[in-house]
Amino acid sequence: MKKIAAENYNLPLTLLQSKGNTSVVPLNWEKHVLYLLDQRLLPHEETWLSYRSAKDVAQAIKDMVVRGAPAIGITAAFGMVLAAYGLKHKNRDLFVEKWLEKAAFMLQARPTAVNLKWAVERLEKLARRHYELSPGDLTAILEKEAISIWTEDVRANIAIGFHGQALLPETGGVLTHCNAGGLATGGYGTALGVIRAALSRGKKINVIADETRPWLQGARLTAWELIKDGIAVTLVVDGAAGFLMQKGQIKAVVVGADRIAANGDVANKIGTYTVAELARANNIPFYVAAPVSTIDPFTPSGDQIPIEKRGPGEITTFAGKKIAATGVEVQNPVFDITSHHLITAIITELGVLTPPYGPAIYACFS
Amino acid sequence: MKKIAAENYNLPLTLLQSKGNTSVVPLNWEKHVLYLLDQRLLPHEETWLSYRSAKDVAQAIKDMVVRGAPAIGITAAFGMVLAAYGLKHKNRDLFVEKWLEKAAFMLQARPTAVNLKWAVERLEKLARRHYELSPGDLTAILEKEAISIWTEDVRANIAIGFHGQALLPETGGVLTHCNAGGLATGGYGTALGVIRAALSRGKKINVIADETRPWLQGARLTAWELIKDGIAVTLVVDGAAGFLMQKGQIKAVVVGADRIAANGDVANKIGTYTVAELARANNIPFYVAAPVSTIDPFTPSGDQIPIEKRGPGEITTFAGKKIAATGVEVQNPVFDITSHHLITAIITELGVLTPPYGPAIYACFS
Repeated sequence: MKKIAAENYNLPLTLLQSKGNTSVVPLNWEKHVLYLLDQRLLPHEETWLSYRSAKDVAQAIKDMVVRGAPAIGITAAFGMVLAAYGLKHKNRDLFVEKWLEKAAFMLQARPTAVNLKWAVERLEKLARRHYELSPGDLTAILEKEAISIWTEDVRANIAIGFHGQALLPETGGVLTHCNAGGLATGGYGTALGVIRAALSRGKKINVIADETRPWLQGARLTAWELIKDGIAVTLVVDGAAGFLMQKGQIKAVVVGADRIAANGDVANKIGTYTVAELARANNIPFYVAAPVSTIDPFTPSGDQIPIEKRGPGEITTFAGKKIAATGVEVQNPVFDITSHHLITAIITELGVLTPPYGPAIYACFS
Repeated sequence: MKKIAAENYNLPLTLLQSKGNTSVVPLNWEKHVLYLLDQRLLPHEETWLSYRSAKDVAQAIKDMVVRGAPAIGITAAFGMVLAAYGLKHKNRDLFVEKWLEKAAFMLQARPTAVNLKWAVERLEKLARRHYELSPGDLTAILEKEAISIWTEDVRANIAIGFHGQALLPETGGVLTHCNAGGLATGGYGTALGVIRAALSRGKKINVIADETRPWLQGARLTAWELIKDGIAVTLVVDGAAGFLMQKGQIKAVVVGADRIAANGDVANKIGTYTVAELARANNIPFYVAAPVSTIDPFTPSGDQIPIEKRGPGEITTFAGKKIAATGVEVQNPVFDITSHHLITAIITELGVLTPPYGPAIYACFS
């Protein structure tokens, strides 16, 4: 994985350009090579890494070179295309067998976001359906499908923005948690897509970003991509969101999602549940913006969503420097569950879902 | 202010020792010199700084060499003793006039914690009462009073611990936010005093500490002083406290206070209000532990408590390294107000106050 200059590969998607939208994108694809913007180094360095194998892509997802549920799904899809390119087997049966093994490995990269599973399973189904094709032809079909997954995600985000912007106030603060922006998706973003759409329609909202410990997605990624887009953003520590709500400085909250259960419970970055509880206590609407690919109709409620726990180093150290006292124990769950009771609406590309979420979600898959 | 070895001056208070308690203390006093443990450098370095003037002490409070409402009060008191020592005036009127000017300056160091005001005004009253004394005799009385303020605080904390431990569960997690420990007081601590007392009575509680952004008092100070005392502690990011509550891992919350209004509203470290709201939503008792010196009966409610805002650097940089994207705006309120509605009980040295807090607080001053 050699480091390459950002300018060479961070070409905005034609789709975004054609709509007059700007947004960073977290990945790029050229035949046989996937490029990922290393989000661990942002905002200090824009470094693009190149990947030529599914195994390395899975590791990149695990290591959070790329993060954000939709972006992980798209990345995994291209990883599976690289898997197909990498298989030397001329024998069709052996090719599919080996490719499915690599798919199973990819599925293990991260547990909470359902989009990874969704994207890989979509390619699996395609591979099974076209079992009769030669490895070369099947690879071409898989590549086409991965590009579709990416393009559809950008289209979905633009639709989410369109539906969601109507819900935001004309003026006042809009709070977001973590990064559900261009960097977390194929481009444009879900929660930040709603904010971009509201601003482009002339709404005078102020974006407020939780810094989002431990990984500081708000301070590092949301702030960076909005400022790059010319959008002003105010940063607060996670503990200050409630204070701003009490002071009337926040009129709405909009966040992304890593997985939405069949009853509308939402898994999202740790701290999201807290923001939702604060919003309820302060009578502020709490919106979740996510594509339908983030909805997992086979998981009945949030209780069944696996919550990833990461290592203590994310909390006890920063940039290699020790922060915390030696000998302290750590719990580092990186997602939490927000009950559907706390969610005012779920904004999807198909439209705005409102309670009761069960039937609304069912309808998305009918 | 030369750096001196910690061992020379961090002598545990006789009072603490005599009760068999251990706890770090944030300050020490020898005639003409105040020593402060530099809390900005903890847990990495134990550096004691020495102070010989009120002006330098005020700056140390402002710069957070020492923090925590009771510790600030005690420090300010010794600062005012240094002020008295520093005044060369043999003329009594001029001495008192200049000393009161320095008191007015000291009062400006930090706005939210009322203990600073309380301690300085206590010395002011004493000075006015003994106006007839010579500067030398008055200085001696002020020094004796400052030592009393310190000693009384330690006694108060031990009493708070005694009253408060009865409220904690026999087993399970107890969450604290920020540092209301030995480092924040004269020794032993308020919230951590309650925890120390519960543990010393054999309760099997697990201490859980919010890291407490931006200053990381939980990760740096609470974890450090508890581990130093042989008490295990689990660190979580501020956004994870709600997750642990949902999972039943937290049975009680206990925090300190920077100022308690006459109606029981509590100003405390930013993020405290959030913890209180989460506790209410999860049916977990939320306790505030503070000496009566933290109660401000002249402030009717939390709305009238001034909230200090500090610079953006506390959020955008860490240990000199930039964290956040360039160009981001910042709001950094460092305290918030928790409404008395969210507080199960206020634990003072005089006993446990329960709602309605107005009459209970009035009784403390009767």
